[in-house]
Amino acid sequence: MITFAQFGAGRIGAIHAANLAASGNARLRYVVDVNQTAATALANKHGARVANVGTALGDPEVDAVIIASSTDTHADLAIAAAKAGKAIFCEKPIDLSLKRVDACLAAVKKAKVPMLVGFNRRFDPSFAALRQRILDGAIGAVEQVIVTSRDPGPPPVSYLKVSGGQFRDMTIHDFDMARWLLGEEPSEIFAYGSCLVDPAIGKVGDTDSVMIVMKTKSGKLAHINNSRRAAYGYDQRIEVHGAKGRLLAGNRTATTVEQADATNVSADKPLHFFLERYADAYRIELAAFLDALANQKPMPVGAEDGRRALVLAEGAAKSLRTGRPVKL
Amino acid sequence: MITFAQFGAGRIGAIHAANLAASGNARLRYVVDVNQTAATALANKHGARVANVGTALGDPEVDAVIIASSTDTHADLAIAAAKAGKAIFCEKPIDLSLKRVDACLAAVKKAKVPMLVGFNRRFDPSFAALRQRILDGAIGAVEQVIVTSRDPGPPPVSYLKVSGGQFRDMTIHDFDMARWLLGEEPSEIFAYGSCLVDPAIGKVGDTDSVMIVMKTKSGKLAHINNSRRAAYGYDQRIEVHGAKGRLLAGNRTATTVEQADATNVSADKPLHFFLERYADAYRIELAAFLDALANQKPMPVGAEDGRRALVLAEGAAKSLRTGRPVKL
Amino acid sequence: MITFAQFGAGRIGAIHAANLAASGNARLRYVVDVNQTAATALANKHGARVANVGTALGDPEVDAVIIASSTDTHADLAIAAAKAGKAIFCEKPIDLSLKRVDACLAAVKKAKVPMLVGFNRRFDPSFAALRQRILDGAIGAVEQVIVTSRDPGPPPVSYLKVSGGQFRDMTIHDFDMARWLLGEEPSEIFAYGSCLVDPAIGKVGDTDSVMIVMKTKSGKLAHINNSRRAAYGYDQRIEVHGAKGRLLAGNRTATTVEQADATNVSADKPLHFFLERYADAYRIELAAFLDALANQKPMPVGAEDGRRALVLAEGAAKSLRTGRPVKL
Amino acid sequence: MITFAQFGAGRIGAIHAANLAASGNARLRYVVDVNQTAATALANKHGARVANVGTALGDPEVDAVIIASSTDTHADLAIAAAKAGKAIFCEKPIDLSLKRVDACLAAVKKAKVPMLVGFNRRFDPSFAALRQRILDGAIGAVEQVIVTSRDPGPPPVSYLKVSGGQFRDMTIHDFDMARWLLGEEPSEIFAYGSCLVDPAIGKVGDTDSVMIVMKTKSGKLAHINNSRRAAYGYDQRIEVHGAKGRLLAGNRTATTVEQADATNVSADKPLHFFLERYADAYRIELAAFLDALANQKPMPVGAEDGRRALVLAEGAAKSLRTGRPVKL
Repeated sequence: MITFAQFGAGRIGAIHAANLAASGNARLRYVVDVNQTAATALANKHGARVANVGTALGDPEVDAVIIASSTDTHADLAIAAAKAGKAIFCEKPIDLSLKRVDACLAAVKKAKVPMLVGFNRRFDPSFAALRQRILDGAIGAVEQVIVTSRDPGPPPVSYLKVSGGQFRDMTIHDFDMARWLLGEEPSEIFAYGSCLVDPAIGKVGDTDSVMIVMKTKSGKLAHINNSRRAAYGYDQRIEVHGAKGRLLAGNRTATTVEQADATNVSADKPLHFFLERYADAYRIELAAFLDALANQKPMPVGAEDGRRALVLAEGAAKSLRTGRPVKL
Repeated sequence: MITFAQFGAGRIGAIHAANLAASGNARLRYVVDVNQTAATALANKHGARVANVGTALGDPEVDAVIIASSTDTHADLAIAAAKAGKAIFCEKPIDLSLKRVDACLAAVKKAKVPMLVGFNRRFDPSFAALRQRILDGAIGAVEQVIVTSRDPGPPPVSYLKVSGGQFRDMTIHDFDMARWLLGEEPSEIFAYGSCLVDPAIGKVGDTDSVMIVMKTKSGKLAHINNSRRAAYGYDQRIEVHGAKGRLLAGNRTATTVEQADATNVSADKPLHFFLERYADAYRIELAAFLDALANQKPMPVGAEDGRRALVLAEGAAKSLRTGRPVKL
Repeated sequence: MITFAQFGAGRIGAIHAANLAASGNARLRYVVDVNQTAATALANKHGARVANVGTALGDPEVDAVIIASSTDTHADLAIAAAKAGKAIFCEKPIDLSLKRVDACLAAVKKAKVPMLVGFNRRFDPSFAALRQRILDGAIGAVEQVIVTSRDPGPPPVSYLKVSGGQFRDMTIHDFDMARWLLGEEPSEIFAYGSCLVDPAIGKVGDTDSVMIVMKTKSGKLAHINNSRRAAYGYDQRIEVHGAKGRLLAGNRTATTVEQADATNVSADKPLHFFLERYADAYRIELAAFLDALANQKPMPVGAEDGRRALVLAEGAAKSLRTGRPVKL
Repeated sequence: MITFAQFGAGRIGAIHAANLAASGNARLRYVVDVNQTAATALANKHGARVANVGTALGDPEVDAVIIASSTDTHADLAIAAAKAGKAIFCEKPIDLSLKRVDACLAAVKKAKVPMLVGFNRRFDPSFAALRQRILDGAIGAVEQVIVTSRDPGPPPVSYLKVSGGQFRDMTIHDFDMARWLLGEEPSEIFAYGSCLVDPAIGKVGDTDSVMIVMKTKSGKLAHINNSRRAAYGYDQRIEVHGAKGRLLAGNRTATTVEQADATNVSADKPLHFFLERYADAYRIELAAFLDALANQKPMPVGAEDGRRALVLAEGAAKSLRTGRPVKL
């Protein structure tokens, strides 16, 4: 039985706490959140106690922490948890600043605590199966990767202001996917970005529509397209081309119902957003963390993965700013 | 908080007990099973006690029972539970004998206890959405219903001997689907049956491959095809034709991965069997039972539904035996 | 260069004449039709002459005939063509009366002329490929065949009056498909039929909605469902289940465009009717006739196939009339 | 009846000549090709005469020419045809040199002859329907276009040497698609290219794997990915995202057969290459040319379209060479 403290009692926090409760081999002892109401509600639901950071990290019975609080607190909490010797499950991104990410990684390394960075998509059954096929040689050597990732609608502008920009906030997941599937680090990146969805997004200096291309040293190519709006729901698709074939992983739907009538033949839209689409992924991700802890396995997504995705996001941002490709 | 006793600690029992535990508004107090090891394991897992029937039904704190034991015990347990004033969630079929089903229904009626019969497919999200569209008028008046229901492989012959035959054991679900979707009771039935999968099945007097047609009074038509073997997995599809269009509900897959290579373009097989395919349905079914109990709603599948499906199964069996259509 | 006379200058006649013209190794010399305007137009289009039956069959340079006139003239024309020693391409059905079909087959046999009966669906690329897979053993021994065949809308009641009824007029194609795919003759048949589409169809003693089941001596099973109306277009699908798997052949669409929007994800309806859906099949069918003639190959669909499909139609009609299964 | 001379009796020439013959309102009078055997064979097949350029263009009865000879002859032939006052159907590209294209366009403009450049994909029923939906407002304002275009295998290196490079030879079609669908000219382009398929391609200074991004003045974005090899056949897909939804047009297959067995559920590979995939497009393209001539309509793809696609190809080539985005 692994004992947890969780930081953050919001939307994602609720998911992790519920998955923890259902896992059977973990228990939640503390919930920490600046929003006391949310903390209390979540703690009560799972038989945990509300606490502050010091209490939670000071309890020697706490084995591990889940960091699901606001992005600006991730690095400090991870450093504190590392110093307290706790295993760390940290939502992405570790931080919006590469400097602070490096400080965090150094602390984790020094403390020799295990750390998983929450790139939940790696645990999506379809994406995971697609990658396994690559590893199994089903399509030969990978040559091109295409990641389509489009949100149903933009977050509030107030959020966008502190989000670090579309590349760090949204594309960060797709950068991780591309790295993971290419099997080789991108060595150069080029990005176009526009504001087509909502002028208010442009006013705060952000983009809502981007297209990125990347190249690895051996010449493999990757493309990512993003939009903050997809009228038909959350569009999350991956396409990998190799010497012997192609793999696609598409969207999931709530039902398989197909209607044919005088108009057309129609089916369900994709599942609406990440809570629905990645419900399985969140569950499997936490299970993988627990399994790695219980069996001293390496973490399936390490702190270094969190750092590298941020490097790509910074490269894309620089490319957009300078209008030139950026060497990585 | 609704308190349960559960009869049966086997494969289906484990599913219901887990769904009960996760539901949040129910608790399992007793597990009853002739297999003490299974009963103990399941009871321990969910903080329940092993008991015998008398203890379980004699406890006034028990509000409801789940009957997930072997088929031949369903009717007796349901009658006893009814007499004890417990709400009943009973796996299908109520019994293989229409007479005993009638006795059970009489006891339930007399005791005025709520009873749900476990036609889990009604709670499959795709089938439920398909039916809702019919009710919403999406395809106009229903004219023809086609149910495809094919198991990945046959059960052991030892089971088939006591199963009541393919119509009562397997097609019973499809009869319920057909009734539910036609919106009108079949008035006549005709069945062909063969033994094509395994001669051993024929030796115990059963079929493994059947095709059925049914007609309602107003002329609506339905077809069911079954096989005890589908090399590609559990094939569960429904097709409904109406005056204004057609609705299909197809199989579900574990992933959306599609591979294109020098051979072909391929995708996952359907989910293997009922535990995988209907995992959501079992969960939703129990939630519906709890919701009906908590809010005094009518049961979404009543005891009478269990009876009528059996009437169709008996009609099919008689048709097969006599080589003639059977009026219902 | 094979020289043809064609009987019938209607819709189907125009298709065959155009395919003949494009084939490159055949020429149309005569067009015969009671409608002189239609005959003249078609003859002019393809550089042929309008003639009467005697002239067309009396010309020794005519090698072959296409019989695409009204159904009631098929048998007489085929008999006359056989006596004149011409190869025969005859649209289905040969006749609505089994007695006259037999007379026709006797004349053809006596004259030793090749005869192809126009079961065009056998030449549909998808259906032909599906059958080839069966022959190649892709799904092992065939166990169950399901034919879905639904017209976009009913023909005029005036036509239905002389059509021989839905089984002989419409299902005849599906009976041929079922025989062809089962690889074994049905030995018994049972049919339900209703009038659900248009009461006027019932008034002339016909059905518009039917469901049929058939059984072969070895226990293989087949199901056919028909409707005279499918709001979404011409629904032509086949499903074959074997010991090792399943084969489906579905509808074709005009385009592959898929639209995703706030409502749903939609695609084209099936091609509207037989002229569109089976355009390729008609072309390939005529090419197969020409190839068989040019290379003294056996006809891919023989006169006997025409007869056997009619036997099944008569069986279905008798079953519907008597309410009982009919041995064949 | 429009009278044609055709230059080029190769693979594409044969297709155009056959479509001309089947069109019903055109006739082929001359075939011109340096390969006399090919010219004679094609001329004989369609009742035309073999001639040289002078004879063909000197005949006042010739209304129009089809230029389907080798790329390096296109511009000269088009200029000569323009001077002779003939309408021009010219295979893409007009020329590999923008200077010569401009000379050609000037000649055509001066002569005021109609000219269609053979961007056959615009006439593909799926792509044409997709674009029509954009024009009809089905997805609102276009925001992003993604063109996937992958050949089943590379052409001989001897061909690649004179092809002008992958962008001018292969991507040229995709540039046309992107322009056509964006509804606005790209103002900037960036390209990555690699040699991943065959080192021999790299040795002659060409790429076989490319990824391109483009931006328009208003911020619309486009991506093209190409490979000279797709183990599964000719991959030709288009995806357009707009404010209100998404349109896709996918590959076509020879049949709709789907096989489910113990391994997976599989379907046909895409049609193998352009002759199969775009057979309809070539036919419709020529019909559109004939229709525009007969009814004095504007050409559906003009000479200027040929020029602009080449400008994009040159931009991509320059971007690849310089490693920087190129303003257009």
